[in-house]
Amino acid sequence: MNIRYPLIVLNFKTYRESIGKKALELAKTAEKAAEETGVSVAVCPSLVDLANVASNVSVHVFAQHCDPYLPGAYTGSVVAEALKEAGAVGSLLNHSEKKLRLSDLSEAVNRLRVNGLVSIVCADDPYAATAAAALGPDVLAVEPPELIGTGISVSRAKPEVVTETVSRVKAIAPSVRVLCGAGVSTAEDVSKAIELGTDGVLLASAFVKASDPMALLLRMCEAVLAKQS
Amino acid sequence: MNIRYPLIVLNFKTYRESIGKKALELAKTAEKAAEETGVSVAVCPSLVDLANVASNVSVHVFAQHCDPYLPGAYTGSVVAEALKEAGAVGSLLNHSEKKLRLSDLSEAVNRLRVNGLVSIVCADDPYAATAAAALGPDVLAVEPPELIGTGISVSRAKPEVVTETVSRVKAIAPSVRVLCGAGVSTAEDVSKAIELGTDGVLLASAFVKASDPMALLLRMCEAVLAKQS
Amino acid sequence: MNIRYPLIVLNFKTYRESIGKKALELAKTAEKAAEETGVSVAVCPSLVDLANVASNVSVHVFAQHCDPYLPGAYTGSVVAEALKEAGAVGSLLNHSEKKLRLSDLSEAVNRLRVNGLVSIVCADDPYAATAAAALGPDVLAVEPPELIGTGISVSRAKPEVVTETVSRVKAIAPSVRVLCGAGVSTAEDVSKAIELGTDGVLLASAFVKASDPMALLLRMCEAVLAKQS
Amino acid sequence: MNIRYPLIVLNFKTYRESIGKKALELAKTAEKAAEETGVSVAVCPSLVDLANVASNVSVHVFAQHCDPYLPGAYTGSVVAEALKEAGAVGSLLNHSEKKLRLSDLSEAVNRLRVNGLVSIVCADDPYAATAAAALGPDVLAVEPPELIGTGISVSRAKPEVVTETVSRVKAIAPSVRVLCGAGVSTAEDVSKAIELGTDGVLLASAFVKASDPMALLLRMCEAVLAKQS
Repeated sequence: MNIRYPLIVLNFKTYRESIGKKALELAKTAEKAAEETGVSVAVCPSLVDLANVASNVSVHVFAQHCDPYLPGAYTGSVVAEALKEAGAVGSLLNHSEKKLRLSDLSEAVNRLRVNGLVSIVCADDPYAATAAAALGPDVLAVEPPELIGTGISVSRAKPEVVTETVSRVKAIAPSVRVLCGAGVSTAEDVSKAIELGTDGVLLASAFVKASDPMALLLRMCEAVLAKQS
Repeated sequence: MNIRYPLIVLNFKTYRESIGKKALELAKTAEKAAEETGVSVAVCPSLVDLANVASNVSVHVFAQHCDPYLPGAYTGSVVAEALKEAGAVGSLLNHSEKKLRLSDLSEAVNRLRVNGLVSIVCADDPYAATAAAALGPDVLAVEPPELIGTGISVSRAKPEVVTETVSRVKAIAPSVRVLCGAGVSTAEDVSKAIELGTDGVLLASAFVKASDPMALLLRMCEAVLAKQS
Repeated sequence: MNIRYPLIVLNFKTYRESIGKKALELAKTAEKAAEETGVSVAVCPSLVDLANVASNVSVHVFAQHCDPYLPGAYTGSVVAEALKEAGAVGSLLNHSEKKLRLSDLSEAVNRLRVNGLVSIVCADDPYAATAAAALGPDVLAVEPPELIGTGISVSRAKPEVVTETVSRVKAIAPSVRVLCGAGVSTAEDVSKAIELGTDGVLLASAFVKASDPMALLLRMCEAVLAKQS
Repeated sequence: MNIRYPLIVLNFKTYRESIGKKALELAKTAEKAAEETGVSVAVCPSLVDLANVASNVSVHVFAQHCDPYLPGAYTGSVVAEALKEAGAVGSLLNHSEKKLRLSDLSEAVNRLRVNGLVSIVCADDPYAATAAAALGPDVLAVEPPELIGTGISVSRAKPEVVTETVSRVKAIAPSVRVLCGAGVSTAEDVSKAIELGTDGVLLASAFVKASDPMALLLRMCEAVLAKQS
């Protein structure tokens, strides 16, 4: 899977504003902003909405979670093979709302890799991010959980967390991409994240609950373009 | 939701033989058997396949799991509202491969009820089944985990587990339906389950991995009809 | 194990004020109040402090948790046999800070019973309490988690939760004792709990963090005596 | 805490043969072997037995698990402060029978460090071990779970797992000690582990269930001495 960076990843979570028909509407919004600006955008609909979204939009579609299992007797679980067939290009892993045990995270990264899917591993702090980098994921998203959903971006509130994560992670795994998450809510947060050396951002409520999601996403895409020119 | 009993519930789990396109094929098989015989049949595709299956077949579609949350910031989780919008009529809960904490099970039953969805709560033994009955689910499925996937039906190997469960559960919650699970693999198992006083069966690998799933399901449906006449 | 009721159960949790030497001091305080008033008192020190406390005081000593395992290869777990040999007379189970899956709770109750130990199962609400009662524990403690540690007693804030729990639980399991937990902090809370038909109280921070734990416990014991006379 | 290496770590788990009085007997055996040979030995009694063992023997005593919490309202949990006051010098973390989520493991390592306690982090494979090394523990024990309790030592069955772990871990964290676990059952396994570049071994059932634990441990200590001379 060839994904261009910087990348804006939109996590839909399971908000009332982002499930069912609204998941597809938000994904269409993301598609339109990506097409208008040429910026690389990905959406992460809920597991139940994944297949429908993936078959109806051209932006990258990621799952919100993948279990560390081969296909088999795992009632209620999500295997990489099913994600792939549903049209996902990858999955978030270890989000602070769906934390994984170290050994399961290691195996989930592996299950995605074996299926040609992109892993975006979330981590709380530079230490956990560095540990996760050693597992060989494609992308790391650093998200101090105390900032998630606050509207206070980690790139503004704790820029040293971002720069420390980037330098630690690149020291261990130079090819791993790093995203900045938690509290990302404005175009300025996107600019700042790129200035700090990251390959993009991961955001959720700021987009899903925006009064005008399209306007917000267009401003964020333009912030990416401004940094690239 | 009006569901007729006896009911044959087919849990697809996440087998290679039951995800993606094959989920829809198996669901179509179930639909055809239900239409030909008039017997009530339900399918439980994986979470990722749920929406696609539900929008393409007329048999009842249940999720394999539902989390105990209101819509909100729950990355990687499954909320009842999303299941409903995807076309599910209910969900399995507390399957032995996806066990829930007592308080979460209590809340998940409630979340389904509030959304007008049918809860099928799985339990390991008569005590746990009785406890689960006190939570007010619609259906209880008793599945001794040591028999799951063995091809040895609980109705043959441990008929007293089934009859004890039925009598204990009905004493606490007379309107709760009881299904017989774990090891159900033949039409005789279905007959036996109904003789023991249950309202149907829950099976998985015997159907999913059958050399001829349609033939097996037709025989099971005929066993139901024979008991009703 | 013969325990008299009403019973005052003191959960030490793992506060700075209640671990190590301070666990033994608090347990000695409980012993003295029990001896002076003749009221039945139990203490629940942390797992690490359990053996030392149990070998040095005459009040009942309960563990804060027990795992659902037979002795075996369970690194980091707590088996009933070890609790018994350490001098515990029973254990809390399913505290809202250590919730168990339904099947594990069922088995943990059984593991205690087999070892002649008393089970005190905590539950969040009348439904979960009724479910837990079906598992056959000795004692049920109803603790709405939103009141834990608040100083607002469930017997004052939600008396109907207590009376509903008592009546539901006794309907299913007449011999099960019911304790009132969450927010119990004064002698009046103890009086009120007994008036509502319970067999005692379960409290933690109000005792552990009291400026004068002995004075508080003596007042609570006297409230018990006043209700009995 | 100054610990000499090579180190032989004896995990008592919660076997019938290693809880209660037998925990102290086994610890006394370990003490005697350590004193006779001068080799560094540590024991890991169950949480309930920890304080009693630690106050009665001179060998290093480790807990089998530590939770990632500050002292507080954590019923049924184990905080580092309580371990320290009970006389432990450190704790195992993330044993394959008590696996931790990555973020909890990160914080548990930190909680031990803050309290001056030694962390021995277990990991399943070289990747997870390298990830764990990035968290800054004192010691890493690599234990392929499929070999635990088999009597087939990882140092014999999968020497490349051991050497790969040692080289990967030392590349990231040169000062981290590496132990070889899973299946260690003979003096030859100890010799082989040291030859492969490790700082000692972690074993459980081979010692706890030995017909003559003292004889076995003496042979293992002599294997250590032979490698040092």
